[in-house]
Amino acid sequence: MRPGTTGAARIEGVLSPVITPFQRDYAPDAERFVRHCRWLLASGCAGLAVFGTNSEANSLSVPEKRALLQKLVEGGVPAAALMPGTGHCALSDSIELTRAAVELGCAGVLMLPPFFYKGVSDEGLYRNFSEVIERVGDDRLRLYLYHIPPVSQVPITLGLIERLLAKYPGIVAGVKDSSGDWSNTKAMLDAFAASGFDVFAGSEVFLLDNMRNGGKGCITATGNVNPGPIVQLYKNWRSGDAERMQAAIIATRKIVQKQPMIPALKATVAHFANDPQWKICRPPLVELTAAQEEQLISELNASGFSMPGLAG
Amino acid sequence: MRPGTTGAARIEGVLSPVITPFQRDYAPDAERFVRHCRWLLASGCAGLAVFGTNSEANSLSVPEKRALLQKLVEGGVPAAALMPGTGHCALSDSIELTRAAVELGCAGVLMLPPFFYKGVSDEGLYRNFSEVIERVGDDRLRLYLYHIPPVSQVPITLGLIERLLAKYPGIVAGVKDSSGDWSNTKAMLDAFAASGFDVFAGSEVFLLDNMRNGGKGCITATGNVNPGPIVQLYKNWRSGDAERMQAAIIATRKIVQKQPMIPALKATVAHFANDPQWKICRPPLVELTAAQEEQLISELNASGFSMPGLAG
Repeated sequence: MRPGTTGAARIEGVLSPVITPFQRDYAPDAERFVRHCRWLLASGCAGLAVFGTNSEANSLSVPEKRALLQKLVEGGVPAAALMPGTGHCALSDSIELTRAAVELGCAGVLMLPPFFYKGVSDEGLYRNFSEVIERVGDDRLRLYLYHIPPVSQVPITLGLIERLLAKYPGIVAGVKDSSGDWSNTKAMLDAFAASGFDVFAGSEVFLLDNMRNGGKGCITATGNVNPGPIVQLYKNWRSGDAERMQAAIIATRKIVQKQPMIPALKATVAHFANDPQWKICRPPLVELTAAQEEQLISELNASGFSMPGLAG
Repeated sequence: MRPGTTGAARIEGVLSPVITPFQRDYAPDAERFVRHCRWLLASGCAGLAVFGTNSEANSLSVPEKRALLQKLVEGGVPAAALMPGTGHCALSDSIELTRAAVELGCAGVLMLPPFFYKGVSDEGLYRNFSEVIERVGDDRLRLYLYHIPPVSQVPITLGLIERLLAKYPGIVAGVKDSSGDWSNTKAMLDAFAASGFDVFAGSEVFLLDNMRNGGKGCITATGNVNPGPIVQLYKNWRSGDAERMQAAIIATRKIVQKQPMIPALKATVAHFANDPQWKICRPPLVELTAAQEEQLISELNASGFSMPGLAG
């Protein structure tokens, strides 16, 4: 393997961690999934971070995720727009799904650290990522590290990034920082952006700051429902109107965030697509209550929110 | 399905959450695994909680766990002594491994709640366990809930147990309480032990207290290395010597606990079996440093610790 010597241009811009629709028996619903992915790309998303936190990815088995990836590509979603989440607690699962993603031609993979054991060492995390890279053994691999300590409880430290970048330049391609802590994102940008390490903000809240400091975009939950305005800020971040656009997309996010995020995203799509099945969440998550849903939709409507082109 | 109407006698006593040996390439080592399981049973363990926290279970894929279970049974370990961990983040994984365990004739399964999402509702957790029970659909299933909030960060509350017991009496068979909080174990005993719900202490530290309050034994990490003396306390908890026996096994545990628990258990077996390969941990865990290992072994030796019958 010659690390990082081949491959297409890297994804930059706004990526959506695509919510995963389920059927009434909690089976993944490939048809609705493909349809939503196509709508997101048509709405300007540069890429699709399928199997992220907001995708209920960890509620899906590896075979279920492999089958959905296959359906996306068969359904006309370009693999070059895909950055699936492939990090699992089990090293063997991470290797299997990462290999499948590379073989399908995905632009990259977004990898959680193994998250069951808490307080693990950077040495142990280094070995985890290193084993995945070595076992996949394919220089088309572009690995983005997924730092989301509020959920994973296991951080990706600057020291770990430095060590991985030194050993696997070009393969270790970037990070999604969902710490919610701009000073951490800034530290990653200052330390690594100049060496070709692509930093994505974990939400649109920090999109403008990230672009002004050498970042490459954002990967954001609300990209599932509000992609157009977020993409507009990405495309026009140097314009005089950028601050107003940043404030507007934060205002929309705040409405959604008053409710539990994942069922709120699903309820929003269900409402604006007039397709109630979208509300189903796989256990352990549950759908919004009727009162939560009513508050969400009425506040979105009052704000002038819309999802152009969504309804069939 | 007629819940809980058939099945053999339930396991009571000391269970070991069996450590999982790996080969140099991190593949599971079935031969060493079978050998250790047979030694644990020969040493008095009533059962084997394979695929627990101390087994690095979450570092193994479902196919790897299914293959190991099969090898155990083929290797002469009675399925009636097995209580494999079958709880995963993904509902589909939990269903698959639970079904495989029931079909093999395992005495029960020990189920973690889905542990990626934090702050989930009891309703969501109820749906998770309920779906597993309904999909497996086999009245031989005996489901033990695994409460280990320091690691899973997702608790099994008394309210959740009450609701599951009411709906699935006989199937929902008990709990392992690894909260480290005796008042919680006591509350579980007071609320549910009389109705045939088997409470296992999560370590030998609370074995005597648990037995005196209607519990059924313990499932403990150090059962991997010190099963004989722990089993002796279980068998003689009513004797006048019980307090001394309790103090002695706690003293041994304290030596092991000074080091990271899982690599310490593996280093202990490696030393006393004269088999260094046992030291290997799968990432993200790492083996002890030489200094840690030296301290561990010298303190164990100084205490008179031994593992009778282990060396081949």
